[in-house]
Amino acid sequence: EDHIGALPYLLREVNPPLYATRLTRGLIEVKLKEQRIKGTHITTIRPHETINLPPFRIQPYRVCHSIPDGVGLAVHTPLGTVVHSGDYKFDQTPVDGKTTDFAKLAELGGKGVLLLMADSTNAERPGFTPSEQEVGETFERVFAQTKGRIIVTTFASNISRVQQVIDAATAHRRQVAVVGRSMQNNVKMAKELGYLKVHDRTLLKPEAIPHTPPERLAIVCTGSQGEPASVLVRMANRDHPQLTLVPGDTVIMSATPIPGNEEVVHRTLNNLFRLGVQVYYHELNRVHVSGHASREELKLLLGMLKPRYFMPLHGEPRHLTLHGELAQEAGMDPAQIFVLEDGQVLEIDQKGARIGERVSAGQVMVDGLGVGDVGQEVLRDRHLLSHDGFVIAVVTIDGKNGKLLSGPDLVTRGFVYLPKSEELLAEAKERVREALDKGGGRAAANKKIHEVLSKYLYEKTKRRPMILPVITEV
Amino acid sequence: EDHIGALPYLLREVNPPLYATRLTRGLIEVKLKEQRIKGTHITTIRPHETINLPPFRIQPYRVCHSIPDGVGLAVHTPLGTVVHSGDYKFDQTPVDGKTTDFAKLAELGGKGVLLLMADSTNAERPGFTPSEQEVGETFERVFAQTKGRIIVTTFASNISRVQQVIDAATAHRRQVAVVGRSMQNNVKMAKELGYLKVHDRTLLKPEAIPHTPPERLAIVCTGSQGEPASVLVRMANRDHPQLTLVPGDTVIMSATPIPGNEEVVHRTLNNLFRLGVQVYYHELNRVHVSGHASREELKLLLGMLKPRYFMPLHGEPRHLTLHGELAQEAGMDPAQIFVLEDGQVLEIDQKGARIGERVSAGQVMVDGLGVGDVGQEVLRDRHLLSHDGFVIAVVTIDGKNGKLLSGPDLVTRGFVYLPKSEELLAEAKERVREALDKGGGRAAANKKIHEVLSKYLYEKTKRRPMILPVITEV
Repeated sequence: EDHIGALPYLLREVNPPLYATRLTRGLIEVKLKEQRIKGTHITTIRPHETINLPPFRIQPYRVCHSIPDGVGLAVHTPLGTVVHSGDYKFDQTPVDGKTTDFAKLAELGGKGVLLLMADSTNAERPGFTPSEQEVGETFERVFAQTKGRIIVTTFASNISRVQQVIDAATAHRRQVAVVGRSMQNNVKMAKELGYLKVHDRTLLKPEAIPHTPPERLAIVCTGSQGEPASVLVRMANRDHPQLTLVPGDTVIMSATPIPGNEEVVHRTLNNLFRLGVQVYYHELNRVHVSGHASREELKLLLGMLKPRYFMPLHGEPRHLTLHGELAQEAGMDPAQIFVLEDGQVLEIDQKGARIGERVSAGQVMVDGLGVGDVGQEVLRDRHLLSHDGFVIAVVTIDGKNGKLLSGPDLVTRGFVYLPKSEELLAEAKERVREALDKGGGRAAANKKIHEVLSKYLYEKTKRRPMILPVITEV
Repeated sequence: EDHIGALPYLLREVNPPLYATRLTRGLIEVKLKEQRIKGTHITTIRPHETINLPPFRIQPYRVCHSIPDGVGLAVHTPLGTVVHSGDYKFDQTPVDGKTTDFAKLAELGGKGVLLLMADSTNAERPGFTPSEQEVGETFERVFAQTKGRIIVTTFASNISRVQQVIDAATAHRRQVAVVGRSMQNNVKMAKELGYLKVHDRTLLKPEAIPHTPPERLAIVCTGSQGEPASVLVRMANRDHPQLTLVPGDTVIMSATPIPGNEEVVHRTLNNLFRLGVQVYYHELNRVHVSGHASREELKLLLGMLKPRYFMPLHGEPRHLTLHGELAQEAGMDPAQIFVLEDGQVLEIDQKGARIGERVSAGQVMVDGLGVGDVGQEVLRDRHLLSHDGFVIAVVTIDGKNGKLLSGPDLVTRGFVYLPKSEELLAEAKERVREALDKGGGRAAANKKIHEVLSKYLYEKTKRRPMILPVITEV
């Protein structure tokens, strides 16, 4: 999702040819179909097959991640080879048995790499990222010892994790029901493309859930990030139309919270515990491993490729900085390392590498149908409103002398509890009336209302609602 | 703060005598002075000194935590002894050298405990919580190898941590400046009471910071939770009037984010990295340890006290449930274990223990000067406003036939970017005008405006701003 999620928006602006491995292509096509985007030209690429885009020759090489079919890219340019790691880790026992292509990396390193751009997500984590196999072992253990229903949540795109659920279910004679649209779409596609190995008799339609004995059933659904509309969260809130959780059920949350989601994930966990459900989650059990390389793996990649220049990618500023420092510890000269901010450009030519002219870059926010229209102003207003709400003062003034003719009416939400604030608001109105008594123009009235209300309401409540005068002149 | 923070509010409702150990008393007095609360009667208690409150006899016993002078309570009742653990851990090398009172626990266990109520904060964490000494060792290492200024942030109440900074600073010939009001108040009080061991010549006034060589300076301040008004966050934002961070400075974030604060803490870290500051924080270094017992310690307490009944305390529902399960693993009968929700009452008499009648209990929110006035309605409005803002339609209608006389004026914030939404809002006004064309009463107008705007604006933006008609009849 963090690699293809913006595609539908980007494709509305430009329509370049796309290159993707088979599974990635499948995921993209599911997404474009959902968003009704047509006319995109996609070419399927395969590891080891070179893409010729003069003056570049691009060689994808296989990497392990939380999903099959990931690749890194070796871009051969007239000046030298640029390697883009993609999201990767060095898992020796991945779910599909296909490890990161060490041979290719060694070959690239041997021939010389001009620039490495590499994933920095786990630049804070010591050691090696554990193998997906450890998750498989946990699943095996849980499935072996559990009598009731087993519900597993993960990202809809985490095809490898779904395969692990199917494997454990098959081994313990459970059928698997996939619930939720995004999960169903991805599973169907991955099965058709051969990335999910599953017998038809193992898969169960959601309608059949009530008729299946608990000990023969596993459910795969979304909700690992506490998403309000997800199947798991609705079940945890006793709010799902078909599925009800009962004591005896077991839930496996096979993901860690993405930063910022901790609160909603914890709330979901608390609700599950309240329902008396057995819960396996990352704090207690190895039910998830990261898809990204940890510090020792980052060093390993640097060591294999020995790039002339290095640019950390894919992380917040602290991750990029730490990855840069790691490269220094691994022996690179600080002058070879470029930790860039969004919008900065790295230029390389025969003479060397340097940071070039800044280009326009930043976040484009999508809100409803709007793309990019919500910016700092709107966000600041939402932030203010979320804190202390608003108070609107509606007045009619005399166009000639600016004196108050009617009002003020005060309209307020999110500021105080109205049934208990009559006195406060009555006094606030009185203050506005007094302030407008002497007349003046519209601008003066606007200013006065603002001043009087801000001051009085803050004095009485120590809150700062947004204050908006609405003035009608007659 | 999570134990005494509500006192000023509680004391406005009831004014019972308070009992507290010396340091706790000091912290309470700082707080009551800040909030100008007088007339509170506080009795100083000491571990091993019995408090007689017939029919109860209360014996405080020493526990380790992130602060000196913590106690658990053994409450001797006519029916048996109830033990309340307080916040505790079994640190063998605490900063003040005073360990949890094993002898007292063993004695209580030997004589028989009716009920144990115990801290569940770390019921998810395996093993033992590391000792405060490990933090001291990290500080020692950082102070030994750092040339520039060292800035340490922690909770204002974490007196033990401040002591560790002072110890490391003293050992490496640095003076310590305490910056920020809450930190200064607590340090002053703890020093006066003898809980902070520090030479006067080690402490430095904040005004002297600019005149002190970087290698001779350490600064202690707040900001470990990313609090917007804290010294560290303002420095990280280049927004502090006196203090400016420069490359060469070292920041130690000596705390872990409290759940919910992750995003602001990460933002602060990113800003520090952008400034080129060296940062030590919990993801990378042992710069903080929890003050709460982990699973093996929880079992140890249960094993020493062997209570007849057990009630997990101090945690979210998942922590309480896990702590209850742990007691079961440790050999207790599920019938002896009571995992309660807020408002549930545990009743014990000669016949046994059971959950009694529910009492009224819940969260009382404090917002500005308001205590308890912000409830579900106000929060729901703030939540809605934070999502999609609001649109207010101001109209004047004819009192007789309900026809539109003037307006609508639309006032909106937090919904769309105004300079680019003129067309949308003009069309929205037109729709309102059409809808009110046929007249009707105030109620009808209200309903129509609501319907027309919700429908039209959602259709065009897929956003749902709060819609408020303001109708003047003339």
